[in-house]
Amino acid sequence: MQPSVLVLNGPNLNLLGEREPSLYGTTSLAEVEARCRTVGAEHRLHVDVRQSNHEGVLIDAVHEARETAAGIVINAGGYSHTSVALRDALAAAGIPVVEVHLTNIHRREAFRASSHVAAVADAVICGAGAHGYELALHHLARLIGKERA
Amino acid sequence: MQPSVLVLNGPNLNLLGEREPSLYGTTSLAEVEARCRTVGAEHRLHVDVRQSNHEGVLIDAVHEARETAAGIVINAGGYSHTSVALRDALAAAGIPVVEVHLTNIHRREAFRASSHVAAVADAVICGAGAHGYELALHHLARLIGKERA
Amino acid sequence: MQPSVLVLNGPNLNLLGEREPSLYGTTSLAEVEARCRTVGAEHRLHVDVRQSNHEGVLIDAVHEARETAAGIVINAGGYSHTSVALRDALAAAGIPVVEVHLTNIHRREAFRASSHVAAVADAVICGAGAHGYELALHHLARLIGKERA
Amino acid sequence: MQPSVLVLNGPNLNLLGEREPSLYGTTSLAEVEARCRTVGAEHRLHVDVRQSNHEGVLIDAVHEARETAAGIVINAGGYSHTSVALRDALAAAGIPVVEVHLTNIHRREAFRASSHVAAVADAVICGAGAHGYELALHHLARLIGKERA
Amino acid sequence: MQPSVLVLNGPNLNLLGEREPSLYGTTSLAEVEARCRTVGAEHRLHVDVRQSNHEGVLIDAVHEARETAAGIVINAGGYSHTSVALRDALAAAGIPVVEVHLTNIHRREAFRASSHVAAVADAVICGAGAHGYELALHHLARLIGKERA
Amino acid sequence: MQPSVLVLNGPNLNLLGEREPSLYGTTSLAEVEARCRTVGAEHRLHVDVRQSNHEGVLIDAVHEARETAAGIVINAGGYSHTSVALRDALAAAGIPVVEVHLTNIHRREAFRASSHVAAVADAVICGAGAHGYELALHHLARLIGKERA
Amino acid sequence: MQPSVLVLNGPNLNLLGEREPSLYGTTSLAEVEARCRTVGAEHRLHVDVRQSNHEGVLIDAVHEARETAAGIVINAGGYSHTSVALRDALAAAGIPVVEVHLTNIHRREAFRASSHVAAVADAVICGAGAHGYELALHHLARLIGKERA
Amino acid sequence: MQPSVLVLNGPNLNLLGEREPSLYGTTSLAEVEARCRTVGAEHRLHVDVRQSNHEGVLIDAVHEARETAAGIVINAGGYSHTSVALRDALAAAGIPVVEVHLTNIHRREAFRASSHVAAVADAVICGAGAHGYELALHHLARLIGKERA
Amino acid sequence: MQPSVLVLNGPNLNLLGEREPSLYGTTSLAEVEARCRTVGAEHRLHVDVRQSNHEGVLIDAVHEARETAAGIVINAGGYSHTSVALRDALAAAGIPVVEVHLTNIHRREAFRASSHVAAVADAVICGAGAHGYELALHHLARLIGKERA
Amino acid sequence: MQPSVLVLNGPNLNLLGEREPSLYGTTSLAEVEARCRTVGAEHRLHVDVRQSNHEGVLIDAVHEARETAAGIVINAGGYSHTSVALRDALAAAGIPVVEVHLTNIHRREAFRASSHVAAVADAVICGAGAHGYELALHHLARLIGKERA
Amino acid sequence: MQPSVLVLNGPNLNLLGEREPSLYGTTSLAEVEARCRTVGAEHRLHVDVRQSNHEGVLIDAVHEARETAAGIVINAGGYSHTSVALRDALAAAGIPVVEVHLTNIHRREAFRASSHVAAVADAVICGAGAHGYELALHHLARLIGKERA
Amino acid sequence: MQPSVLVLNGPNLNLLGEREPSLYGTTSLAEVEARCRTVGAEHRLHVDVRQSNHEGVLIDAVHEARETAAGIVINAGGYSHTSVALRDALAAAGIPVVEVHLTNIHRREAFRASSHVAAVADAVICGAGAHGYELALHHLARLIGKERA
Repeated sequence: MQPSVLVLNGPNLNLLGEREPSLYGTTSLAEVEARCRTVGAEHRLHVDVRQSNHEGVLIDAVHEARETAAGIVINAGGYSHTSVALRDALAAAGIPVVEVHLTNIHRREAFRASSHVAAVADAVICGAGAHGYELALHHLARLIGKERA
Repeated sequence: MQPSVLVLNGPNLNLLGEREPSLYGTTSLAEVEARCRTVGAEHRLHVDVRQSNHEGVLIDAVHEARETAAGIVINAGGYSHTSVALRDALAAAGIPVVEVHLTNIHRREAFRASSHVAAVADAVICGAGAHGYELALHHLARLIGKERA
Repeated sequence: MQPSVLVLNGPNLNLLGEREPSLYGTTSLAEVEARCRTVGAEHRLHVDVRQSNHEGVLIDAVHEARETAAGIVINAGGYSHTSVALRDALAAAGIPVVEVHLTNIHRREAFRASSHVAAVADAVICGAGAHGYELALHHLARLIGKERA
Repeated sequence: MQPSVLVLNGPNLNLLGEREPSLYGTTSLAEVEARCRTVGAEHRLHVDVRQSNHEGVLIDAVHEARETAAGIVINAGGYSHTSVALRDALAAAGIPVVEVHLTNIHRREAFRASSHVAAVADAVICGAGAHGYELALHHLARLIGKERA
Repeated sequence: MQPSVLVLNGPNLNLLGEREPSLYGTTSLAEVEARCRTVGAEHRLHVDVRQSNHEGVLIDAVHEARETAAGIVINAGGYSHTSVALRDALAAAGIPVVEVHLTNIHRREAFRASSHVAAVADAVICGAGAHGYELALHHLARLIGKERA
Repeated sequence: MQPSVLVLNGPNLNLLGEREPSLYGTTSLAEVEARCRTVGAEHRLHVDVRQSNHEGVLIDAVHEARETAAGIVINAGGYSHTSVALRDALAAAGIPVVEVHLTNIHRREAFRASSHVAAVADAVICGAGAHGYELALHHLARLIGKERA
Repeated sequence: MQPSVLVLNGPNLNLLGEREPSLYGTTSLAEVEARCRTVGAEHRLHVDVRQSNHEGVLIDAVHEARETAAGIVINAGGYSHTSVALRDALAAAGIPVVEVHLTNIHRREAFRASSHVAAVADAVICGAGAHGYELALHHLARLIGKERA
Repeated sequence: MQPSVLVLNGPNLNLLGEREPSLYGTTSLAEVEARCRTVGAEHRLHVDVRQSNHEGVLIDAVHEARETAAGIVINAGGYSHTSVALRDALAAAGIPVVEVHLTNIHRREAFRASSHVAAVADAVICGAGAHGYELALHHLARLIGKERA
Repeated sequence: MQPSVLVLNGPNLNLLGEREPSLYGTTSLAEVEARCRTVGAEHRLHVDVRQSNHEGVLIDAVHEARETAAGIVINAGGYSHTSVALRDALAAAGIPVVEVHLTNIHRREAFRASSHVAAVADAVICGAGAHGYELALHHLARLIGKERA
Repeated sequence: MQPSVLVLNGPNLNLLGEREPSLYGTTSLAEVEARCRTVGAEHRLHVDVRQSNHEGVLIDAVHEARETAAGIVINAGGYSHTSVALRDALAAAGIPVVEVHLTNIHRREAFRASSHVAAVADAVICGAGAHGYELALHHLARLIGKERA
Repeated sequence: MQPSVLVLNGPNLNLLGEREPSLYGTTSLAEVEARCRTVGAEHRLHVDVRQSNHEGVLIDAVHEARETAAGIVINAGGYSHTSVALRDALAAAGIPVVEVHLTNIHRREAFRASSHVAAVADAVICGAGAHGYELALHHLARLIGKERA
Repeated sequence: MQPSVLVLNGPNLNLLGEREPSLYGTTSLAEVEARCRTVGAEHRLHVDVRQSNHEGVLIDAVHEARETAAGIVINAGGYSHTSVALRDALAAAGIPVVEVHLTNIHRREAFRASSHVAAVADAVICGAGAHGYELALHHLARLIGKERA
C-alpha cells in the first residue's frame, strides 16, 4: 500500500483564490489539492488534503496522522503564529513535517515572522505561493524515503 | 429586502449579566440582542446576533457573513487579543467592521490594550458597556449607507 | 438650567476638513460643532466646543469644566499620546469623560496606539470620523443621566 | 450528595503516556483518571475527568462547572500560555481553581514560563508529573472545605 | 539684599488640596506658599512661588530665574515625566535645583518613576507631601550657602 | 536509619503568621514545622526545618544537605527571585529539590513571577499556603523513593 | 514678491550663545537671524525668524506658515523628541521642511537620537552648529525651486 | 519613654568619608550618626544608627525594629537595587520608612534608578548628601507624630 | 540564448560537506553545483554557481547579475543576518531572488531567525539541506517564466 | 599645496542614478564627483572621491586618509548601520568627519535610523539627496579652516 | 616586606573539584590555592586565598584588602551577576582588580553574560578553568609593578 | 616539526600603538608579534601573526588554519561584535580558540559587551592590554597540550 501524507490547511485557506488575491494568489484550494495529488502520484504517495478553521480540528488531524500518515505538509495560517497547542501536537507526531506559507512572512507584519510551527518543522517554505505546496511535497517525499531507507 | 448585519460575540459573552457584573454590567446577552434589533429596525437593517466560545465557529460565521451580510459588529472577547486567524478572516471579509468592548480595555491588564481585531476594524468603541453595541450599529449603518451611495 | 458639556479639541483640529482629508475627512470643525449642538439639544445639554493648540490652555479648560460642566468629550489630538499633565487634569476633573479620535489609532504608527487620555476616560471611540463626536455625546448624555439618577 | 470537581485536560493530553515519555512520563490519561477518582473518594468528592483539544470545548466545560462543580483542577496544556478566553472563563467561574503542569514549565522554553491560567488560579503545581494531579486534588479538597465552612 | 529662590509648580498644582486629597493631601497651594515663606525667612531667602499649567510659561520662568534667583525648587507635575524642553531649561539655568513630588513616584504607574527633571536636579524629595517643599528649601538654602562660601 | 530531608526557609519566613496574614496566612513557622514532621513521619523521613534571613547561611545549609540529606524542600522567599548563588548551590546539590511558595507568585508583582530556584527545582508548588509544604514533602518522598528504587 | 520662509526655533534657543557654550556654541540667536537673512537674500527669499518656548505658539506658527510661507527650517529643541502635536502640524503644512540641530544628536543621551520632526521633515542636518541653519536654507531654497519648476 | 528610630545603613557605608569623596562627600558615618542624634533630640526621638555589609543582618535589624522602633530611615546602598528580601522585610515592618541616598540616583547608571526599597518606603530623599539623613529624620518625626495622633 | 541564473553562496559554504556535517550535511559545494546544473538544464537555464567569504565580493556579484542574470538563488550564510549592504544590493537588482538555508534557521540561535535577505527575497526555503537549492531553482524558473510571459 | 579631503562612498553607491531612482535620485556617482570637485575648488580643497562595496577597502581608505587628508565626507551606505569596524577606523582617524545619507534615514525602516558612523561623526546630513554632499563639503571646509586657525 | 594580594572566591567555590566537574573541572580549591602561591612566589607576592558563601563576608574582605593588599583576584561566582554591593566595594577599593571565571560565561545562560564585577575590574579572564587564576595573578603582578613604578 | 598557532588580528589593529593610546596602549603590532614569538618559543609553538581589515580575509585565514594550525588566538576588533560569518568559521575550525581584547569590553559602550567570537571561543581574556596576547598563548599552549595528550 502507498504511504499516505497529510496536507493540512488552517484558518481562512478555504477562501484561497477569492481572498485578497493580490496577496494570496488566484489558485483555489481545490486546485492546490489537485496539484498536490499529482505531485504525490509522482512519488507514489497518497495525499490527503484537509482544511479547517478550528484549531482543535487541526490538532485532532495531526493526532490521527501520527497513526496513519508518513508525513505532514502544513500551512497553519494564522494559528502558525499563536498556537502552542498545535506546535506540541506536531512535536508529538514523530513524523516529518514541512511548513508552507503562501506569502513571504518575513515581508509582512512583525508578528507573522515568528511561527510556532517552524520551531518544530523539518523544513519551511514561504513566499512561493501555491507552488510552495508542490515543493514541500517533493521534499517530504525525500524525507520519507530517507526514513524508510 | 433589508440588508443584514452580523453582531458577533466571542467567548464568555454568553455569561453577560451574570459574570463579574461590577465589571461587565448587569445587562444579559438577550437584552443586548433586543436592543440591537431595535436599533437595526431604526436603520432598516436585519440584525443577526450570535455567540460562540469557539474561535473556529466565529471564523466560520465571518466567512458566512462575507456572502450574506452588509457589515459586522464584533466583540471578540478574549480572542481579540490573541487571534490572528480571526483577524485574517475579518480582513478577508470585505465589508465594514466595527469592534466593541464592554469595558475600557486601556484601563485593564496591559495585554488587553492591543487587539488584533482593532487592527482590521473600521472603528472601535470601548468602555461604553452594552450601550456600545447600539453606538456601533448606528455607525455601521452609516458606513453601509456610504458604501451603497 | 440645562447641564453643560465641554467638547474639547486639541492641536491641529482647527485645520479639520483642510488637513490631509483622505485621513481626517472633509468635515470642518465648525460643522462638527453644529452637529454636536444638534445632538446636545436632543439630550437637553448645552454644548461648549473649544479648540486650542496649547496644552496649557486645554488643561485650564478641563479645570474650568470641573466647576461648570457635567461631562467632557475630548479629542486631544497629538497630546493624547504624550501629555501626562492633561491626563492628570482629566483624572482630577471628577466628571465623566469620553475620548474621541477621528481615525482608528490602532491602524497607524505604533506610538499612536497608546493614549494617556484613554487611561482615564470612561469610554473611547475611534475611527468613526466626525460621527464619533455624535456617538460620544450620546454616550456622555447617558453617563450624566446615570450620575444624576 | 457528594460535591463534584472537574479535572479538565487540554490539548495533546489524550496522548499522555505515548507522547515524548521522557518528558511527560509513561502514565496514561486513563491511569490519571483512576488515580484522581481514588483521591476524590478519599475526600468524598465526585471527580469528573475530561479532555479536549478544542479551546471552545474547554471554555464550555468551565461554564458548565460554574453551575455543577465545587472546584476545578486544570491542565490546559498549550492553551495555558495563549488563551485569554480560557483565563476569562476561569475568572468568571467563581469556584476554586488549581492549575497542574506535568513538567516544570520554568525549565523549558521561555514562552512556557508564563501562564494565563496561573494568573487566575488559586494554586499552581508543576513538575510533579502525574502525581501533580493528586496533589492538586488534595489541595482543592481543602479549599472546598474552607469555602463550605 | 536677600537672595531670592523660585518655587515653581507645574500643571494641576493649582488644584492642590481639592484634587484627589487621599493621594495629594488637603493642603492648598496657598498654604504651601505660606510655609515656604516661613522656611525662607528662616534662611533669609526671599521666596517666589509660582504655578502654571503651561509648559512654556514654566520654561520662561526658569529662564528668568537664571538672572534673578539663587536657586529653584520645582514640582513640575506631569511635565516631569515628559518635558525635555523643561529639562534643558533647568540644565541651562546654572543654579542649584531641588525637585519635589508630593507623592512617592516609585509606588505609582511605571511612567511616573522616571523624571526628566530628576536627571538635572541636585537633589530629589518625593513622597513627603507638602512637607517636601519645606525640606527642599532647607536643602536649597544649604546649597546656596555653599556656592556663596 | 531514616533518610533525612531539609525544609529550608528564606528571609522573613520567621515572621510567618504575624506578617501580612491576609497575604501569607496565620500559620506560624513552628506550626509548619510540626506539620512537616507529621508528613515526614508518614513517609519515614526525618525532617529538618531551618530558617535564615542570610543568603550565605542558606547556601551553607544546601552544601551541608549535599552530604546529609536525601532531598530538599525550599521556600527561598525574596532570594528566589534574585539569587544566582543559591541557584548554583541547589544545582550542585545533586539531590531532589521541590520549591514552595506560600502565595501564587503569578498573581503578584511581575518580578516575583520568575524564580532562580524554579529553574533548578524538580517541581514547584505555589499558592497553596502552608499546605504547600505538606504537598511538597509528599512529592519529595516519592522522588526519593524512585531514586532509591 | 519674494517667497517667504519661516525659520522656527523652539525652547531655550533664546539663550543661544549664553547657554552651555561648549555644547551649543557662542553665536547668539540674533546672529543666526542675521546669517539666515544673508543666505535668504542670496536665494531671493524673505526669511522670518521666530522663537518660542511654547509648544502651542510653535504649532500656531506652522499653521500660519501653511498659508504664507514657501518652506520651513525648524530647530524644535527639546520638543523635537516629544511633540506629536508639532509633528502633526508639520505633516499638515504641505510645504518643504528642513530640520536643524546645533549638536550631533546621535552623540548625546539616547532619548535625543529620535526626533518626531525628523519623521516628517524632508532633510535633517545636525552637528553643524549655527552653520547648520545656513546649510538648511541653501537646501530649502533648492526644494522650493524644484516645487516651483 | 522616648520613641526610638532606627537609622539603618547598608553595604560600604562604613567607608563614608573615605570612599570616592567626590561622589559621596567627606562626612564620615560617625559624623552622620552625631548629626542624626542631634536631629532626633530635637524631636525627642532616640536614634539608633547601625551599619552592616550583610543583607541578612540588615533584614534581622528590620525585624527587630518591628518590635522596638517607631520608624526607620534606611540607606540600603547597593542592596536597594537588588534585594527583594529586604523589601519584603520593610513591607512587613508596619512602621513608617524613609529612604535616603547620598547621591542623586537618577544621574548615575541606569540600574541605580530603580530601588526595591523605594517601592515600599513612604518617602524618598536622594542627592542631598549627608544632609539627607537629617531631612529624613525631620520627615520621619512628622510621620510618627501623625500615627500617634 | 539560455537565460542565466546566479547561485550565490556566502561565507563558510566552501567548507560544505566537511564542516559540522551533522548540522550541514555531507554534500559538498561541488555536488550542489552539479545538482543545480542538472535542475537548470531541466528548465533551460544556465546556472552560474559562486562562493565567497567576502561580503564585498558577494555584493559585486549581485551587481553583475543585475546586468547578466534572470534571477538569483542565494545562501548568504552568516551575512544573511547582518548585511544591510547585501540586502540593499539585492533590492536594487530588480530580478527575482530566492533565499536558501541548509538548516531550519527557526530551530537555532535566536539571531539566526531574522534575515536581511529574507526581507527582500521573493521566496525563502530553509531546512531542506542541499535539496533546498534544487527546490529554489525550480521556483526561480517559474518566477522567470512568469516575468517573461 | 592644497589640503585634500576624502569623499568615501560605501556599498551600492556605484549604482547611483540607476538604482531605485524614486528613492535615491537620478544623479550618477560621476556627477556627484564632479559637483564635489567644484565645491572643493571653491574652498581650495583637493577632493578625492572613492567608492567600494568592500568594508575592508573602506577601512583601508580611512587609514590612508589619516595620513594624507584633512577631513572625510562619508556615505557608508548599508555599512553605516552595521560596521563597528568602520566606526572604530573613523574614531581613530583624528580628522573631521561629516556623514551624508541621500535619503532621510528617519523615514525608512527602523534599523536605518541608527548609524555607527553618526556616533563618531562631527555632523550628519541626511535626506538632501546628492546636494547633501555639497553641503557636507561646505561644512567640512569650515571645520578644516577652524582646525588650522 | 612582600606585597600581599587577595584571591577572593565567592559562593559554591568551596565545592570546586566536586561540583559538576564536567563544567567546573576536577581541581579543588586547595589545589588552586597551592598554584596561586606558586605563581605569587614567582612574582614575590604574598597570596591570601579566601572563600565565602556570604556576600557580606566578601564585601568585608574587600574592605580589609583596601588597607592591606596591593591587588585583588576575584571569582565572585553567582554574586558576579547580581551584587551591586560587591561592585561598589571593589570600586571603592582603589587597587587593581582582575576578575576570573572558571567557565566561559558567554557560552552559558544569558544572565551569566553580564557581571557587575567586570564593570569595575581592570581585566577579565574567563573559560580558562583553574589556569585562569594563574593568568590573573601574572597580570595582577604586572599591574602592581606598574603602579609602584 | 613544531605545531603552529595563528594569532589573528582584525580591523584597525594595524594602528596599534598609534591609535588612541590612552585607550589601546603604546605597544605596536610589531612588538606584540615579537612578544608572541617569545612566548611561542617557550612552548615550542610556531607563531604566525596576521592582521587584516577585511572580514573575508580573516575568514579565509581561519579556514586555512583548520588545516595548518593547532590553535588560534584572535582579536577580531570591531568584527567581534557583528560577524556571524567569522563566528561560524571559528566554530567550524575544530581547534582551540582563545579570544583577546586589549580593553575591558565590559566598561565601554553596551554594544561592545557582546561578542560573537566569545560565544564559540574556549576562553576569553580582556582588559589586559598587549599582555593579554601573552596570557592567551600560555593558555592556548595548555589546551593544545591536552588535546595531544
